[in-house]
Formats: sequence, C-alpha cells, structure tokens
Amino acid sequence: MSNHISIPLKDSYKLFNHGPVSIITSAHGDKRNIMAAAWTMPLDFSPAKVAVVIDKNTYTRELVNASGEFGLQFPMRKIAKLTLDVGDVSGRDTDKFSRFDIKTFSASKIAAPLIEDCIGWLECKVIKQGAEEMDLIVGEVVAAYADAEQFLNGRWHFSDDPQKRSIHYMAGGELYVTGEMFKTESGYSAE
Amino acid sequence: MSNHISIPLKDSYKLFNHGPVSIITSAHGDKRNIMAAAWTMPLDFSPAKVAVVIDKNTYTRELVNASGEFGLQFPMRKIAKLTLDVGDVSGRDTDKFSRFDIKTFSASKIAAPLIEDCIGWLECKVIKQGAEEMDLIVGEVVAAYADAEQFLNGRWHFSDDPQKRSIHYMAGGELYVTGEMFKTESGYSAE
Repeated sequence: MSNHISIPLKDSYKLFNHGPVSIITSAHGDKRNIMAAAWTMPLDFSPAKVAVVIDKNTYTRELVNASGEFGLQFPMRKIAKLTLDVGDVSGRDTDKFSRFDIKTFSASKIAAPLIEDCIGWLECKVIKQGAEEMDLIVGEVVAAYADAEQFLNGRWHFSDDPQKRSIHYMAGGELYVTGEMFKTESGYSAE
Repeated sequence: MSNHISIPLKDSYKLFNHGPVSIITSAHGDKRNIMAAAWTMPLDFSPAKVAVVIDKNTYTRELVNASGEFGLQFPMRKIAKLTLDVGDVSGRDTDKFSRFDIKTFSASKIAAPLIEDCIGWLECKVIKQGAEEMDLIVGEVVAAYADAEQFLNGRWHFSDDPQKRSIHYMAGGELYVTGEMFKTESGYSAE
C-alpha cells in the first residue's frame, strides 16, 4: 500500500507541474469509473485549481457531471500497463476496478476512490465546464496527497527505482519515464 | 540553426503530449516578448487546439490580447538556462531577445518570432479566453513544426544526447529531462 501524506493545497501543483500522465477516478451513486488522461495541468496556486480534458462522450464525463467531483492521480511506472489497459474497455459495461483488480483507498472529501501506486493524488470539485464545443473541465483541489517516500519537505526526491517514477504519455502506447533532475545553476546548460 | 519540418496540425499534440515546459513568444506592433510556461496542454486533435495559462498581469498577456496570437515552443535542454532566465526580467522594460541574444526564426502565420533549439513549435491564434478570474487562454494551432532530427515518420526518436531532449519544469529552479521511452507491452509493467 502506498504511504501517502497530506500536503498543503497551495503545493498541489507540484504533483504534476512536470506533466506526467494521470488517472481520473469518478463515482456517482453505486457507479464508479477510471480512465487515463494525458491532458491535465495546474491552473492556479491559491485556491488551487486544475484543468483537465475529459471527452464529453465518455462514461467518466457522465459521472463527473453527475457528481461534480473527480480524483486526479499520477501513476508510478509500476502501474503503467494498468494505466493504458483501463482505456481499452468502457466502464459502462464493466466495473474496471473489479476486472483489473485495482487497489484503491478512500478519498476524504469526494466519493471517487483513489488508486494505489501513484506519486500523488488530488481530490477535486468541478467549478467550471468548458463551453459547448470544449471538453475542458476546471476543478478546485480540496485535498492533496503525495507519496511519503518520494515527497519530502515540500519537494520531490524521486527514487532511483524507475518503477516508482512518474511517467509521461506520448501516443501509440509509447511512454517516457521522468528522467534525471537538474538545475540550470549547476552548469548543465549550454548557454 | 534548428532543422525544422512542418507537421500535420492533427499531429501537433505530439509535440507536448508528454508535458514538457514551454516558451511562449508574442508580438504586437514593434513590441515582442518571451516567457516560460509550464502550464500548457493539448485540448483537441482536430481542429488542433491548445490551452495555456498566462497570468493576466504579464506583459506577454498584454501582447497576446492585443495581437490575438502567440508562439508556443518546447525548448531542448541546451537552452534550459535561457528558459528560466527570461522569467527574471520584465519585457516591458527590456527587449529580452537582444538582452539574451536569443536566436529566432520567422513564423509563417503569426508575427511573434520562434526560438531556435526547441524540439517543436506551434503557431496559435487565440479563440477563447478564460472567464474573468481565470488566466486560461485557448488557442487554435495554425502551423506546427518539429525538429527534423528527432521527429521522424510522425513520431519521436529522441536523441541520446541529453542536451537535445525536452525538459520538464518542477519548481524552485528544478527541471527534469525527458527520460527513456518504454512500451507497456515490453513487460516493464509490474502488473
């Protein structure tokens, strides 16, 4: 089980400022769903807001619209296969949590479950939806957690174990692991 | 000089689907500016759209509002220092292009210049601005280019030279280089 610590909402952008792929969880009544989403970004520091793209035709969007909330989490490489696999079936017909034997834990302020083996988790309430033609949703972050092993004193210290690192989705099943950290002050820049 | 090739607009999301940091260029009349932005994402495939966060108080926002267009590009690690340095002074007082001796080339459909040593470039026209309290801007992609050396047959083949890779911004001057590519079919997943 992931060892997650609560972090200040104003720091929640740090969970995905570097652009990793995400998993969005949703629930309404006795229905729940899970999908992968590469198109997410922080939108504001305080109050902390996020912008996510969720296609209007998806079951996730239906549950998010009905409940007004969603979970947003950033998977470790160890669940990369799961992250892509959940996109291959629709949650309308199947409870993906059972089908893929997904390990979850309870959120504190939303009904949607959160997924184990992520680097960070955000609980979000919908505050705005995009115009008719846009699949954009803006959420306010109401709770945030980070992997206690890798997020220390307000910053990341990513593990040398690549299975614990965050991942970035490209296209066609190709992903990239988050690479090495550097600072420009260290003279790495070719300036 | 970067060797850039034009790519289909529907493929333009591939330039930053993996969440690298960006540089936004803008121009209006004889004024021009450049800023770094971590909060950008694709918003749609066709017509290709992007969402970017540009603080309402910035000079860049002033030029983007006035001109209705902007350049969005994804720097290679070799200009990581420049990417962060341009945020330390305001373009209101200084022409940053001269001050930092920034190498540029002309865009085809917008007035803002594009920056050399990036992996990809998007020319964008503003189609929507966020509500009063939001710093969000939605742009339609009207031209797209990729680094000819690394983008082949519609997909990335990132160089082994880390100086040519894209970079991801975290906070406090810390960046991450885009790491190794993997596919979940390859058995990397711990499923």
